[in-house]
Amino acid sequence: MKLLLDRHSDTPLYRQIAEQIRELIRTGVLTAGCRLPTVRRLALDHGLTRLTVQSGYAELQTQGLVESYVGRGTFVAERAQTMSIPTARAALSRSAVDPATWRSGSSLLSELVRMGEQPQMLSFAQAIPASSTYPTRELQQALSRVLQHPDALDYGPIQGEAELREQVSPLLLERGIAESPEAILISAGAQQGIDVALRALAKPGDVILAEQPVYPGIMELAAAHGLRVVAIPMDEGGMRVQELEVACSAHRPRLVYTVPTFHNPTGLSLDPDRGEALLALAREHDFLLLEDDVYGLLAYDGEVPLPLKARDQSGRVIYITSFSKSLAPGLRLGALAAGPDWLAPLAAAKQSSDLICSSLMQRALALYLRRGHFASHLQEVRILYRERRDAMFKALDTYLPSCGYTRPRGGLSIWVTLPEDIDEYDFCREATLRGVGVARGQAFFAQPQPHGHMRLCFGSHAPDQIEQGVRVLGELLQDYRRHRTLLLARAGLSAHPLV
Amino acid sequence: MKLLLDRHSDTPLYRQIAEQIRELIRTGVLTAGCRLPTVRRLALDHGLTRLTVQSGYAELQTQGLVESYVGRGTFVAERAQTMSIPTARAALSRSAVDPATWRSGSSLLSELVRMGEQPQMLSFAQAIPASSTYPTRELQQALSRVLQHPDALDYGPIQGEAELREQVSPLLLERGIAESPEAILISAGAQQGIDVALRALAKPGDVILAEQPVYPGIMELAAAHGLRVVAIPMDEGGMRVQELEVACSAHRPRLVYTVPTFHNPTGLSLDPDRGEALLALAREHDFLLLEDDVYGLLAYDGEVPLPLKARDQSGRVIYITSFSKSLAPGLRLGALAAGPDWLAPLAAAKQSSDLICSSLMQRALALYLRRGHFASHLQEVRILYRERRDAMFKALDTYLPSCGYTRPRGGLSIWVTLPEDIDEYDFCREATLRGVGVARGQAFFAQPQPHGHMRLCFGSHAPDQIEQGVRVLGELLQDYRRHRTLLLARAGLSAHPLV
Repeated sequence: MKLLLDRHSDTPLYRQIAEQIRELIRTGVLTAGCRLPTVRRLALDHGLTRLTVQSGYAELQTQGLVESYVGRGTFVAERAQTMSIPTARAALSRSAVDPATWRSGSSLLSELVRMGEQPQMLSFAQAIPASSTYPTRELQQALSRVLQHPDALDYGPIQGEAELREQVSPLLLERGIAESPEAILISAGAQQGIDVALRALAKPGDVILAEQPVYPGIMELAAAHGLRVVAIPMDEGGMRVQELEVACSAHRPRLVYTVPTFHNPTGLSLDPDRGEALLALAREHDFLLLEDDVYGLLAYDGEVPLPLKARDQSGRVIYITSFSKSLAPGLRLGALAAGPDWLAPLAAAKQSSDLICSSLMQRALALYLRRGHFASHLQEVRILYRERRDAMFKALDTYLPSCGYTRPRGGLSIWVTLPEDIDEYDFCREATLRGVGVARGQAFFAQPQPHGHMRLCFGSHAPDQIEQGVRVLGELLQDYRRHRTLLLARAGLSAHPLV
Repeated sequence: MKLLLDRHSDTPLYRQIAEQIRELIRTGVLTAGCRLPTVRRLALDHGLTRLTVQSGYAELQTQGLVESYVGRGTFVAERAQTMSIPTARAALSRSAVDPATWRSGSSLLSELVRMGEQPQMLSFAQAIPASSTYPTRELQQALSRVLQHPDALDYGPIQGEAELREQVSPLLLERGIAESPEAILISAGAQQGIDVALRALAKPGDVILAEQPVYPGIMELAAAHGLRVVAIPMDEGGMRVQELEVACSAHRPRLVYTVPTFHNPTGLSLDPDRGEALLALAREHDFLLLEDDVYGLLAYDGEVPLPLKARDQSGRVIYITSFSKSLAPGLRLGALAAGPDWLAPLAAAKQSSDLICSSLMQRALALYLRRGHFASHLQEVRILYRERRDAMFKALDTYLPSCGYTRPRGGLSIWVTLPEDIDEYDFCREATLRGVGVARGQAFFAQPQPHGHMRLCFGSHAPDQIEQGVRVLGELLQDYRRHRTLLLARAGLSAHPLV
């Protein structure tokens, strides 16, 4: 194997090795089971140290693209191959289900957004990145460069700028997904990705399944499109397959919406075996999978679960990602990846939504990615968020020992279960009055829940702020138990209602 | 009956026949009891086999839309009309599920967009500004300034950045509209403005009225939302009020979509008296007016008609504007102005569509506006576009004297009526093959039209290019008459199909 390595490039040699082999897999030159050269051989052929080659192979292994066997060598993984298999056409069920009656009532999502807007609020309510990490300088350079061509301010292709799709394709590969730029549709963040998918692929009256708790946006969207959401409970291993199977038979769902990796709000990931079961159910019951992977790149503890799309052999997974969490929300850029059968209706829905995403922003992001800034950005934020997550773990242990909480290995949020005697609404409201914003658990459910929860997001605050905010919550819990009646009265009279 | 059949479409001819007749029934052009042409007649008129026509009729019969009686003929079924809403919705739903139907469905808007993308094409097809006028330098400065605050890359308010709404408010005043920043919602261009308005203010099965010809986006959007569009004819004075009144009584519309100023595609403006009548009808029949004013600032000949919103006393006008035509499409920024009753549902629809518009772009545009660049920009482009429009007038007089055309006092397009013996589809297709892109008239109608039209946009080409392009069209018209058969054959064999 002959690789083209550039010793003067900013990209380290081991990464160049990894990138080039990944590209060979993506383009189908290397197929599953192919044996890579030995570390020794490749090092010798290219005048490299063995450590360099080993590091490159290790990166490929982390991404699940190759597998090493002691004494035998390194091979392209089975699942790497599924990437280049053309997606099978899905013949779809047309289940006749009664029209939706689900209504969101109060717009809890707006409530979340507004909570983050209050000045002087120490808010854990929104799953937002640390603004200190936003790539202002690099983006400014990219924008200036791109604006040298006036057509950066023109209309562009509905599917998205080719140069951005060409940069997104290798990024998907880092998540084990081999899709060409032609299979990618640029969207205004994941929210539009979901909207466009529901517009294009479901019709009023259809049933969609979603794990619960769930990102509130999906419930509002489903209501807006006349779809019925059926909740599938989840546990530490993600969506529960048994209940899912029952729901499939009972409801004949059109699609299943899922956040299998670092799920919002719990931060948990789907057990790989369950992922396989989910894919099998999709084939058996003829539904589509809408996989929301906006947190997939924010992994803090070693191995990262592969998305469903990486194991999708039947072309049923519509994959949604976004730069809002991993880079900056203000870009309003994300992407969908889908088989050719679905891309045309998705693009048509995108077009009728808002024609195109800003060509200028797309080109600037493409340039930012091409210049290789994103890899180091991800490295930086992963370290930062791990530290913040750990600070929140510690603060929860210290100040809220009577609460249960998840221990996510990635993402931006922790899901806290309040003690049974605590009223979620009162607690979260009082927390806000004391200057600490939290997202109340009910926002993530379609039905009222017996137990109280809250989602705490740790991405946008330094460890000392996290400690301070969680301490306020701990004090509140104690006060709440002591003076419950008094507090309720106070909250009712407050001059600062939380709207 | 004249149907527009596309022999190069993926959709079989019999299905095209069925779809077009279904559309005629749906839009009320063909009503219950109407007799369809005989199979023999329709086959003869369109050069088809009888089997093809029979298959099309059979499909309509299966759907219960027509009834055949031996010896008498084929008639629109009694129940076809009462069914028309649910049936139309079911048809839409089917197309939303079946990608094959989608792709072959008449996505004429995509066709327009693609036409502009062909390299070396001198295209008058898209209503786009002159890219030479895009404010690249000022915008670059504004972006650099705004990016000094990292929160420019954060999430912002759903309604839009306050600083941008504060700049838009005085701009509306230039159009005679006094609305505070609180009454403004920022959108991703007018397309999203329309989408959001339809999402928030209409429900599936509602009827909306629109002047025809009409911006094609509204028809695609209405179909996507399960709305029925009833076409109101227009003349030199805009939408015809008498027909509008009849339609109001017959259809009880939820809203009327209109482009009263420098209408797309005709460039004409609504007579002020008709505007008053329209506002009175809105009160009387209790419907909303969706006023699309994206061309309102592009006026070239003195006095500019006031928008309906400026005379709206009952708060029934939802006003939509955009910076795409007056400044640059790549910004993807526009605005809605509406009374307080409508703003909350509009903002909720915006939120579920894509949460927010890019904070960065909003702030940069706000700064651009605050620095006063927009006024001089408008002055510059008005002079430029007037010159280009006049060049096109002159070229049309010179090279297409047998065509009728509008004489717009603003906007970006001229509406050309082809001579009766010219087949619009063939003419526009051949024009494209000769390197001159035009938007075919049919794209702006819901039903097949007896006369051929084309929309010519003059904004993005210099006078000499305009002269050159229109000359090609004039030569084509002459050639077409001389060698009609030959041309048709050539078009059919071309290696460069216009998809």
